[in-house]
Amino acid sequence: MRLALFEPDIPQNTGTLIRLAACMGLPLDVIEPCGFPWGDRALKRAGMDYVALAAITRHDSWGRFSAAREAGPRLVLLTTKSAEPYTGFAFRPDDILLLGRETAGVPPEVHEAADARITIPMAPPARSLNVAVAAAMVLGEALRQTNGFPEARNAPNELGETA
Amino acid sequence: MRLALFEPDIPQNTGTLIRLAACMGLPLDVIEPCGFPWGDRALKRAGMDYVALAAITRHDSWGRFSAAREAGPRLVLLTTKSAEPYTGFAFRPDDILLLGRETAGVPPEVHEAADARITIPMAPPARSLNVAVAAAMVLGEALRQTNGFPEARNAPNELGETA
Repeated sequence: MRLALFEPDIPQNTGTLIRLAACMGLPLDVIEPCGFPWGDRALKRAGMDYVALAAITRHDSWGRFSAAREAGPRLVLLTTKSAEPYTGFAFRPDDILLLGRETAGVPPEVHEAADARITIPMAPPARSLNVAVAAAMVLGEALRQTNGFPEARNAPNELGETA
Repeated sequence: MRLALFEPDIPQNTGTLIRLAACMGLPLDVIEPCGFPWGDRALKRAGMDYVALAAITRHDSWGRFSAAREAGPRLVLLTTKSAEPYTGFAFRPDDILLLGRETAGVPPEVHEAADARITIPMAPPARSLNVAVAAAMVLGEALRQTNGFPEARNAPNELGETA
């Protein structure tokens, strides 16, 4: 499991998501351009010392990210423009959870390129959650389904191996 | 299900949690004193127009909150000082999810007063998640278990009634 951020534009959210990835022991992809310089103080403040701890891969563009992506792992887009509730979705351990830009989501070609599009049911007239909050809800469910929380992942399996 | 914030001290987080509660159609308790004035600009910015939409109850103190609490609903504390993973916890539809102060968690008497204490497994050396991110992970699981997402809650049940 990994998180991918599409052209994020609010540094606090990116910092908070870096912290989430580090706490879960998961890698994070950042698809640039970002709407802020990478060394932004707000990113560092929200990410705390987890920025150094996280396994972050920065990609120059969506095109580069797509080209580098191996066949196999699915790109699962979290979007308000889907009718499929995330809790009914069957996650796989190697899924990439893709989060859109805070102010604009993702453009149509990215929406189309995703292997699946899922959403979080909301009470009208509410329209959207903070992106880090939305990521946390969906990531928690994805890790629960795939037994992917740090403790479980590092516990010996039936063969005495650890992941 | 409802969220309760114990003496929150970062207005952005409170705003983000107000937005979460509003999007899920859930009430929110704020146990004061807060570490910021209630009209703080950062709270309003993070809470967006959801501050007006959310069902917020402000309590003067922990003592007042406790005294006002009805018998029945459990107080479920989210804390790093617990060994019980939240995904193994059996939530009830009327649980109150209690979140500690960002900088200090909750004092011992509040820890003891909770009916249950649950945690999110993390990868060492990571120590803690942003409070709104942690709340989202646990709330998502609590709503999933209790069929409490807005759409499900508002769908007619077998008797044709809605909640």
